[in-house]
Amino acid sequence: MELKEYNHAALDVMVEKYRNLIDSYIFDIMKGEPETLYKASTHLIKGGGKRLRPIIVLVSSRALGGPRAEAKAIYYATAIEVLHNFSLVHDDIMDNDDYRRGIPTVHKVYGIPTAILAGDLMFSYAFAIPYLAKKAGASDSEVLRAVNVIVEGSKRIAEGQGFDMLFEETWEIGEKDYLRMIYLKTAALIEASSRLGGIASGSSDEIVELIGQYGRLVGLSFQIKDDILGVFGDPKVTGKPRYSDLIRGKKTILVLYAASRKKEWKEFFKKIFEGDSSEETIKEGADIIKESGALDYAQKLAKNYSDNAVERLETIHSMGAIKEEEYFDALKDIAVFSFWRNK
Amino acid sequence: MELKEYNHAALDVMVEKYRNLIDSYIFDIMKGEPETLYKASTHLIKGGGKRLRPIIVLVSSRALGGPRAEAKAIYYATAIEVLHNFSLVHDDIMDNDDYRRGIPTVHKVYGIPTAILAGDLMFSYAFAIPYLAKKAGASDSEVLRAVNVIVEGSKRIAEGQGFDMLFEETWEIGEKDYLRMIYLKTAALIEASSRLGGIASGSSDEIVELIGQYGRLVGLSFQIKDDILGVFGDPKVTGKPRYSDLIRGKKTILVLYAASRKKEWKEFFKKIFEGDSSEETIKEGADIIKESGALDYAQKLAKNYSDNAVERLETIHSMGAIKEEEYFDALKDIAVFSFWRNK
Repeated sequence: MELKEYNHAALDVMVEKYRNLIDSYIFDIMKGEPETLYKASTHLIKGGGKRLRPIIVLVSSRALGGPRAEAKAIYYATAIEVLHNFSLVHDDIMDNDDYRRGIPTVHKVYGIPTAILAGDLMFSYAFAIPYLAKKAGASDSEVLRAVNVIVEGSKRIAEGQGFDMLFEETWEIGEKDYLRMIYLKTAALIEASSRLGGIASGSSDEIVELIGQYGRLVGLSFQIKDDILGVFGDPKVTGKPRYSDLIRGKKTILVLYAASRKKEWKEFFKKIFEGDSSEETIKEGADIIKESGALDYAQKLAKNYSDNAVERLETIHSMGAIKEEEYFDALKDIAVFSFWRNK
Repeated sequence: MELKEYNHAALDVMVEKYRNLIDSYIFDIMKGEPETLYKASTHLIKGGGKRLRPIIVLVSSRALGGPRAEAKAIYYATAIEVLHNFSLVHDDIMDNDDYRRGIPTVHKVYGIPTAILAGDLMFSYAFAIPYLAKKAGASDSEVLRAVNVIVEGSKRIAEGQGFDMLFEETWEIGEKDYLRMIYLKTAALIEASSRLGGIASGSSDEIVELIGQYGRLVGLSFQIKDDILGVFGDPKVTGKPRYSDLIRGKKTILVLYAASRKKEWKEFFKKIFEGDSSEETIKEGADIIKESGALDYAQKLAKNYSDNAVERLETIHSMGAIKEEEYFDALKDIAVFSFWRNK
């Protein structure tokens, strides 16, 4: 399978349409004192980002016949983006990362104590913001349901990061363990996003469940593709160093698959992850990933999730629940993007 | 004013009655994987603590005619205790503290990354737990209101800790700044606790507001007394080193008041806080606090808040909203305890 360019026209329209709206809500809401703490809390969000998760909230809602974004779903979308950024701020401390989105991480600028606290404040806001949907006409039951979806998402992110950290210390990780970890760490929040769109649209429980599954599948495809790009992505496009995940010693599906195929390959990756990260060794590691069939396997796995996500959308369509084709197309684009993207 | 022993009989009955109940809910609910992360998340809670905040939730609810604790309010109580402990776990990292409740802090046992993550997971649970009150018969509107009270409390804790950290770098702090900081950092969560009791009891908005004010006043008295004990507490009773807040350079009302009275006293404290913390210097600092009238002033301030808290209770009583005298007495006891306690 060749990596190729894909034209995400319908998705691009949504990004164009909603990104500034989402940002304006975030920055309008997240104001307060002490000033330094609030600056630290918006530092990373100001650094950019695709806003993929809140766009999924808004587009899912509209596709399913929900009201205009500004009415109600925007609050759930804003909350999800703040929650996502909270998790990045704390992850960057835990992983000791200096840069994200091309700017220094929060703890590099403000120090670890303020970065921990800024994350905590962002976390609070993620639960505070959905309440504002009440003034846009959401019922108490709807808001509570939305909050609960965000809560469950946040719990899973923490558990996922916990597994990710544990994986650093062991090679006893099977594909099932890896898939559980990426579900918790990445896919659960994308699942929460599409589910929130379903809730905001006022759809039946069955449709909310299906659109939630769509999000989960997109999230799994997205993370596996992330792992592929982490080794084989073009540094000029991804903005990350070549082979960055190998240098960082991440036990992704690529490494786990190769290591499970031959004892000597496992030993080779152990050597790299124990610190032998000369350019030559790393390059050889990347070659092993290709030779072992791990790259092909991961691509097929990700494509399969992406295809299944589209299938869930078709099911929803066949049930007559899609009210706006333009947004339906954008949801399909997101599923395709999760796999075909090159950054 | 002399510090004296006070017999908190009615409060003691409540502690005896509820502490194990609260703990059993916490440990039943906070289960999951990865195991290490969950162990880290319950480490501090297992270390003990008075459980004052959840007891305030339960006792406020019963005093105002709410159902038995086990029915509904227990979930709000449990959530508040988990939230309180979350803030301690992260505070201990920020303040680089090695011990709390006589045991090593979470980051000392599990390392900083896991401690940050354990705090995050506890934070998630603080918002997940109130949802469980639904199965005990709470309406969606009640649960959402409860969640919102917890959200606002959590936001204020973060802002309060932000101000506390800022205060380390400046002497430009007036009494108003100090009072705002301790409201945000300590009193807001005690206010949230009594407010949650009011909500669980199904009382009118007016009563919920009054019982919330009671909590706020108890919280202010509690924190000022904490600051007094931080300098003048008996190490054998408090379990903290003598003069600990002076050694740690905390700008409490005691220091701020004395420093505002005489330029040389301000210089003296600056010297201590810049690192001259010989036993003799610290002892002289404590003497200055007495000589300046700061100790008397702080005691009067704390007693005043404690008295006002009791007054709010009397107002609630005069409105006919108190349904159970035994629990009313315990609330009074808590207000008195907040000031008269010696540990």
